[in-house]
Formats: sequence, C-alpha cells, structure tokens
Amino acid sequence: MLFTEKLSARTRSADSMLCVGLDPDPAKFPQCILAEPDPIYAFCEQIVRATAPYVCAYKPQIAYFAANRAEDALERIISLIKSEHPDIPVILDAKRGDIGSTARQYAKEAFVRYNADAVTLSPYMGFDTIEPYFEYPDRGIIVLCRTSNPGGKDIEELVAGGEMVYERIARLAGSSWNRTGQMCLVVGATQPREIASVRRLAPSVPLLVPGIGAQGGDVNAAVAAGLDADGWGMIINSSRAILYAGKDEHFAQAAAEAAISTRDAIRRAKALCRSQ
Amino acid sequence: MLFTEKLSARTRSADSMLCVGLDPDPAKFPQCILAEPDPIYAFCEQIVRATAPYVCAYKPQIAYFAANRAEDALERIISLIKSEHPDIPVILDAKRGDIGSTARQYAKEAFVRYNADAVTLSPYMGFDTIEPYFEYPDRGIIVLCRTSNPGGKDIEELVAGGEMVYERIARLAGSSWNRTGQMCLVVGATQPREIASVRRLAPSVPLLVPGIGAQGGDVNAAVAAGLDADGWGMIINSSRAILYAGKDEHFAQAAAEAAISTRDAIRRAKALCRSQ
Repeated sequence: MLFTEKLSARTRSADSMLCVGLDPDPAKFPQCILAEPDPIYAFCEQIVRATAPYVCAYKPQIAYFAANRAEDALERIISLIKSEHPDIPVILDAKRGDIGSTARQYAKEAFVRYNADAVTLSPYMGFDTIEPYFEYPDRGIIVLCRTSNPGGKDIEELVAGGEMVYERIARLAGSSWNRTGQMCLVVGATQPREIASVRRLAPSVPLLVPGIGAQGGDVNAAVAAGLDADGWGMIINSSRAILYAGKDEHFAQAAAEAAISTRDAIRRAKALCRSQ
Repeated sequence: MLFTEKLSARTRSADSMLCVGLDPDPAKFPQCILAEPDPIYAFCEQIVRATAPYVCAYKPQIAYFAANRAEDALERIISLIKSEHPDIPVILDAKRGDIGSTARQYAKEAFVRYNADAVTLSPYMGFDTIEPYFEYPDRGIIVLCRTSNPGGKDIEELVAGGEMVYERIARLAGSSWNRTGQMCLVVGATQPREIASVRRLAPSVPLLVPGIGAQGGDVNAAVAAGLDADGWGMIINSSRAILYAGKDEHFAQAAAEAAISTRDAIRRAKALCRSQ
C-alpha cells in the first residue's frame, strides 16, 4: 500500500489528523522509566500503547535516538508499531539532505533498516536530494518547505523570480517533483497565511504541520488554512506537549489525555471549516 | 585546541590539503575484507593505516554506517584515528539540518558520541540550524554552500536581493554567522568561478571541496580559486577514487598510492599559484 493511501485510510478510520512525535529525552523521563533497563524503548512503548487509538501517524525523531546510542530502540519501537498497529504509518523525521550514492544509503537506512513508511528531507541541494528516494515508490517523501523558526527567513523567505523560496518548493512538490505521488511538505503551524499559500500551490499534497502544542500554533487557524479539497490532508504533529504531559508514573495516561484533547481540538477546528 | 587551528596545523605539517572521505560500501569491498568478521571496520582501519601520512583530515560519511547498522564501527574508527593520529581532525559528514532541542541532540551525536572535530550542516532552515552547535565552541561547523550537482540550481543559484542564495550563505558564514570563528563552507570542485566567488565573500573561512577524483573536478582550477591569503585554507576531499583504487587484497596499498598522487597533484596546483 502506498504511504499516502495508508495515511489517508488511517486518518479517516481514526477520525484523527494528530501525529505524535516520538522525541524521547531521558532528561525529561519520569523516575519510574529511568529505573527500567532500556528507558528509551520503555518510554516510547508506553507512549505508543497509550496513544495509538488517537493518532493518524507516529513521527520518531532520529536525533534523540542517535544522541543516546539507541538506534536499536528505534528499530524495535517501529517494529512494535508495525506489528501491533499495522494501519498506523511511521514517519522517520531525519531531514536528510544529500545526493547520489550517499542519498541511496540514507534511503536504505530509512526504508530498509528502519522500515519507515516515510522520511523527512531537506531540499537545499535541490531535486537530487529527493530523486534517489523514488527507488522506493510506495514510501512517502516529506520535504521541508516552510518552517516557523525565526531563521526560516534566512533562505525560505527570500524572493527569487517573483516567489519566495518556500513557495517555489511548494509549487515543485505539487507538480514536477511529485513523480510517484508520494510527496508531502513540512509547513510550520504558526503562520496560517503561509499554510494557505502552500495549500494553493500544492492542492493535493499532504502537509506535515509541526508547532501545535509546545510550539504554540493556533489549531483553528492552521486547520482552516491547510485542509485539502476533501477536508483532510494534514498531519498535525505534537511531541513534547503529549510525551511530557505527565511527570510521574501516570505519564502514559497523561499522554493519552493530551492526545485525546489535541485530536478533539483538531476535530472541532475541522468541523468549524465544514460549517462555514 | 580549536578545529580550525588543528586543521591548519595538520595541513601545514603534512603539507597536504587532501581529505580522505570514508564512505564504506560493502558492495565495493574486496573479497578479503568481506571475509572479515567486521568488514566495515576492517576496511576503514586498513584505509586509515595506509593513508594517514598523506591526509589533512578524514571525513566519514555517516549514511554508509547507518544504512548498515554500523554506528559501532564508526565510533571505533574515529577512536582509532584519535588515538593513533591525534593531530588529524575528523569531520563527520552528516549534513544535519534541524533546530532547537533536536539540533542539540544532533550536536551531542556528532561531538559527544562520535567525538568528531567538525560536522557538516544544511542551512535550509537558516541560522537556527547552526546556532545550537556553538555550545561546543572548539568544534568545526561546516555549512553547505554551493554544491556541484545539477540540482544545485534549484535553490543555491536562485537570485534574491542581488545575490545568489549560495553567495548569501558564503557572506553570512564569513561574517555574522561565524560567531566562534569555527565555521567552514562546502563548495563543489566543478565550478572554479563559484569557488572564487565564495573565497571573495568569506576570505578566511576554510573550504571543504568535494568533487576531486571520482566526481571529475579540475584540481588546478579549484586550488587556484580557493586558496586563502596564506596559500592554504582548503580541505579537498576524495572518497571513491582513493577507497576503491584497488579491488583485490592490495587495496590499501592502492589507496595509499592514489592518496599520494592526489596529494601531489594538489601540491603542484598550489605551487603553480605561488609562482604566478
């Protein structure tokens, strides 16, 4: 099954556009997890078991595993999601950006070693950073487009040939770059006007939207700006606000409650759009 | 010791601006290495032992290790370089590009876990992708600027505000972004005119130049364009043309010979500039 089909099916069956980002930071773990023999795996496992009914996808951020020599835990947590929830796609957030044979190694890392359904990529070096991933035509390719950090202005906002760099990326991802139909775009939640502009340029491309929750984006405005023509097409990510909602041994329950309330806020935002 | 000082000292003492890229690809290994219990480590170890006298730096490309579940081999090969050749800096080629707490995890991966002297970064998300690395003020930060692949035109060549995107990156890396004096730039070898333009915009920033050897750049033209005012300031990388110079059990000797001839070609190119 293609990534975009799997994502679309899961989004509709769970009636959820919430993606939970798995950014396991031992410095933020409750004491009970630190006492486990494999704290990173144990933490992610409990988060997945508690939140699975409420999500459209999981997005492990590889840096948190790599910094802690925990690639093995990442392999096992993706394996757990695939075996217990085969309908939930896994997005490996790695923002890889290289070309040629090196990019093919990164594609192998993401799609063979970790068996992720999709991977995030950085487009600085152009289309060549994306093309090698087409060798896995069923997997999703999620390209950085517009990010909400202050430094986003340094390149993304530059105007060249009458359009901003991020608009150019959106336009290309919505047309010639989207060879397998498996392309998605990363668009930060804090600037709804820019989400709307990306949606116009790439009408049917799913948007991965970080910045809900800990990063303070406005759910209603982001959803109104980013829905596709069918009223779906968004993967709205929350990491810290869900993972670290609780600080004690009830953290998994707290995460589930935070996931439910975020999912419901997104549902309400979506309903608001339909009624207009 | 600061990365740029270590690099400068080694470049001068070895009279070499050659960097050997460690891109271990088991599909290209000689049979004798495939028979080893840990082929990736064994291959890199023999390459390092054979080529160390001729290099100013090593540049392991993390994708080749990650695709093959060989992070452990990468740790040990860097450890070997550090213990046997403490004056040779190690550049981790990872092209990371993220912000905030995620970037801090990537910095920990590069500088604590792997103990690399420098890391390569992608600037798409702007200065925020670089700033977290200043927490390690002695380590090198090597930012993608101008790459020689065809897709380099997609973003790097765009003209905004009277300069190309890569010229803007060069200008910033040569000024306000270079807070710790540890910044370097990646500039492909195939377009000497562009190397010269980057050198003008960032006169004292070391340039990491891939594209010599297998990628076909002209050594004389690249060196003439990229030397700094002292006649140094370049890290000229060759990977495949050295690693895979030989295909049988004498591969390490063949790699040493390829390293010597590339180092010498760079030396001659440098002498040519001095005599003009």
